[in-house]
Amino acid sequence: MTIDEFARRLRAHEITARQITEQCLRRIDDLQPKLNAFIRVMADEARSAADAADGELAAGRDRGPLHGVPIAVKDLIDMAGVPTTAASRVREGHMAAADAPVITHLRNAGAVLIGKTNLDEFAFGTTSENSAFGPVRNPIDSRRTPGGSSGGSAVAVATGMALAAVGSDTGGSIRIPAAACGIVGLKPTIGEISTDSVVPLSGTFDHLGPFARSVEDAAIVHRVLAGNSRADLVRTAKRDKDGADLLRSATFGIPRGYLTDLLDTDVRARFDEAVAALRGAGAQVTDVAIPHAELTPAVYVHIHSSEGATYHAQTLDSHADRYTPVVRRRLELGRYVLAQDYVRAMEGRELLRGEVDAALDGVDALLLPTVPIPAPLIGAESAMIAGREEPVRALMLRLTQLFNVTGNPAISLPCGHTSHGLPVGLQLVGRRGGTEALLAVACACERQLA
Amino acid sequence: MTIDEFARRLRAHEITARQITEQCLRRIDDLQPKLNAFIRVMADEARSAADAADGELAAGRDRGPLHGVPIAVKDLIDMAGVPTTAASRVREGHMAAADAPVITHLRNAGAVLIGKTNLDEFAFGTTSENSAFGPVRNPIDSRRTPGGSSGGSAVAVATGMALAAVGSDTGGSIRIPAAACGIVGLKPTIGEISTDSVVPLSGTFDHLGPFARSVEDAAIVHRVLAGNSRADLVRTAKRDKDGADLLRSATFGIPRGYLTDLLDTDVRARFDEAVAALRGAGAQVTDVAIPHAELTPAVYVHIHSSEGATYHAQTLDSHADRYTPVVRRRLELGRYVLAQDYVRAMEGRELLRGEVDAALDGVDALLLPTVPIPAPLIGAESAMIAGREEPVRALMLRLTQLFNVTGNPAISLPCGHTSHGLPVGLQLVGRRGGTEALLAVACACERQLA
Repeated sequence: MTIDEFARRLRAHEITARQITEQCLRRIDDLQPKLNAFIRVMADEARSAADAADGELAAGRDRGPLHGVPIAVKDLIDMAGVPTTAASRVREGHMAAADAPVITHLRNAGAVLIGKTNLDEFAFGTTSENSAFGPVRNPIDSRRTPGGSSGGSAVAVATGMALAAVGSDTGGSIRIPAAACGIVGLKPTIGEISTDSVVPLSGTFDHLGPFARSVEDAAIVHRVLAGNSRADLVRTAKRDKDGADLLRSATFGIPRGYLTDLLDTDVRARFDEAVAALRGAGAQVTDVAIPHAELTPAVYVHIHSSEGATYHAQTLDSHADRYTPVVRRRLELGRYVLAQDYVRAMEGRELLRGEVDAALDGVDALLLPTVPIPAPLIGAESAMIAGREEPVRALMLRLTQLFNVTGNPAISLPCGHTSHGLPVGLQLVGRRGGTEALLAVACACERQLA
Repeated sequence: MTIDEFARRLRAHEITARQITEQCLRRIDDLQPKLNAFIRVMADEARSAADAADGELAAGRDRGPLHGVPIAVKDLIDMAGVPTTAASRVREGHMAAADAPVITHLRNAGAVLIGKTNLDEFAFGTTSENSAFGPVRNPIDSRRTPGGSSGGSAVAVATGMALAAVGSDTGGSIRIPAAACGIVGLKPTIGEISTDSVVPLSGTFDHLGPFARSVEDAAIVHRVLAGNSRADLVRTAKRDKDGADLLRSATFGIPRGYLTDLLDTDVRARFDEAVAALRGAGAQVTDVAIPHAELTPAVYVHIHSSEGATYHAQTLDSHADRYTPVVRRRLELGRYVLAQDYVRAMEGRELLRGEVDAALDGVDALLLPTVPIPAPLIGAESAMIAGREEPVRALMLRLTQLFNVTGNPAISLPCGHTSHGLPVGLQLVGRRGGTEALLAVACACERQLA
């Protein structure tokens, strides 16, 4: 069920917040043993919150579109009175003293917080398999990863354990699992949603954002996470309705070269079909250039690993054995980066910002796949693509990390399936500060591609 | 002569642009052999520009307060058709293809560019003694430095070789020589004046700004450098007149601790007298805290040296022998800074920004000396202060570099002389984005202290 549909039925007295919460909790009971999406299920707290939401509504207090909506939260965001594990043994004994701002916003909007979801340790991964709490599994094929690092949040939404979820995205950690699980994932403009009281990975690249079953749902959750008032919600939620008109006057830019030259055959086919469908709906599609896109991994890794290593320096010294071996190794590498390389990477970031801005000039959004391959098998370190073997981690990040470097808003939409039935994601990228405009055009695309 | 006075006399037909230019050129002829303020004197170009300015005015075209005003420019700013030496042999053979934005602004405002001034090589110094073109000397005592790195610009203005000058300030390089030469020097808010086509030292800390003989003159030049329109100039230039009223309602904060605990006896006496005079004029003066101010040198050096070394990495490899030994050694050190330390320094910068913002809460400006010692002897590596020996470079930067770290606007005003007749500077610091408000209050202080 979408948030939109639940909200309508709730106010038509066809369902209660308690009932949707019980539905979600049953899904968790059924699927959690197999999929391992949650680190902490908060059944009692969720039931109380749902009853309170029902009581408020009965008393005439309506908190808006998230009133009574069960939402799951990635377990690196502080929620008062429960541990923030970040999926790491390093955090043993932690207890959050207060809610992060995004949690406060969700509670104020009437959301029912149903649990804290599993992730790659400290969000340093793309597959959700390096967690102290064991790997998350893809609901379509449990031998495969759900993508990461916010894999638990994606699985919760894809399977109806929650109507929406919150994740974090440092190099693609919302968009990648959204694509791999066949749902919608939004990374908004850098700085739009507070990352206070969230365990950091890379301060320059960290974003929070929503997972949902539709673009409109993602927009609703996004606005709440960003701290918009309820009045704002109602007004802007109406605006996205006339998608067909919007599509007829829209122009999309496909970044040719590095971002589209290495794609799995099925991913390329679904992407080409989506482009054809948008053209068929009257949209203009043009090629655009991001000349130095191939510098992205180097820019990304120097900034990301330096910032990660700085945050973890003390615990790498005192509790190295508590890290998972893979994440520990990734973090240790960051300790040896020179400041010169970090400064050069920051210069590269400015270059790439300028190039992405130029590519967006005259188009409504960039259009590219989210991930060049479907969900890999758990444990796979490399994947075959275009006849060559490539590291899984590099492939997973290849099409998403640029927009963490530049801070542009980017969203992943479902875009059909591979011949083996695995979901494919379509990524749209908008202007910095233009998350709402991106959501509007993504909403129109979603209707056309449905 | 001040710009203000020249502008009045120019329009009263008491003087021409050509006449003031000839006066400045005579001062250069007389004093340049002794003081070495200029790397390049542009006598012919200045005469042509002055004649053109006089012609325009006769034809009824008035470009505003800088019309016909001789101005000197630090030789790390590109001026089309002449080399930008940055006082380094590393730049041999350079020729600037185009004007930097600040030069364009000055030309459009009618300024007469009279020459390019001497500096520490690549602005990496605080005394103007490490130049490939030889040291700049202090006009009050030629055995002493004029402060640096913009020493040539300060000397030019202090001696009437120009009515104003442009300098750069990465850790104090405008304010320090302004204080040491007894004139006004302004470092505006970070980002307010374009540093495009200026040889960089540290991108995070570099600022451009004016030297002048009065705060009002500095304000006029500042507005032109920032690209404000002429209409703006006329309107805002009127505003600073009612200083006495402003002072009666003003509150100043003196940062106790690190920024005022280590001062030369005469500097402290002049500072205390200035504070007493402001109190006497009705201003409130209160103590404020910047609890982690003593972290400033570490924050500053890690960011500054990393960014400097990054820019110079290639020429340090290819032409190390062309650097002055001192600057080469300083730059080489930056190559070994770890990214972790740079990232930590950036975190320290955020901490200090918050503390300076808090210190400014409820006060109009911070008040402190500009440099804790008077101009040192050329060649001195240490100075005695409060009975102990301290490195000159650390002392010179001690009270100024914090505001490069935080980006707050800061201005140095003349504040009397030591018992040996050496100038002392008073520093006022305002809110980021509040350069105009700082100039207004500095103007009021200047009148009170005159």
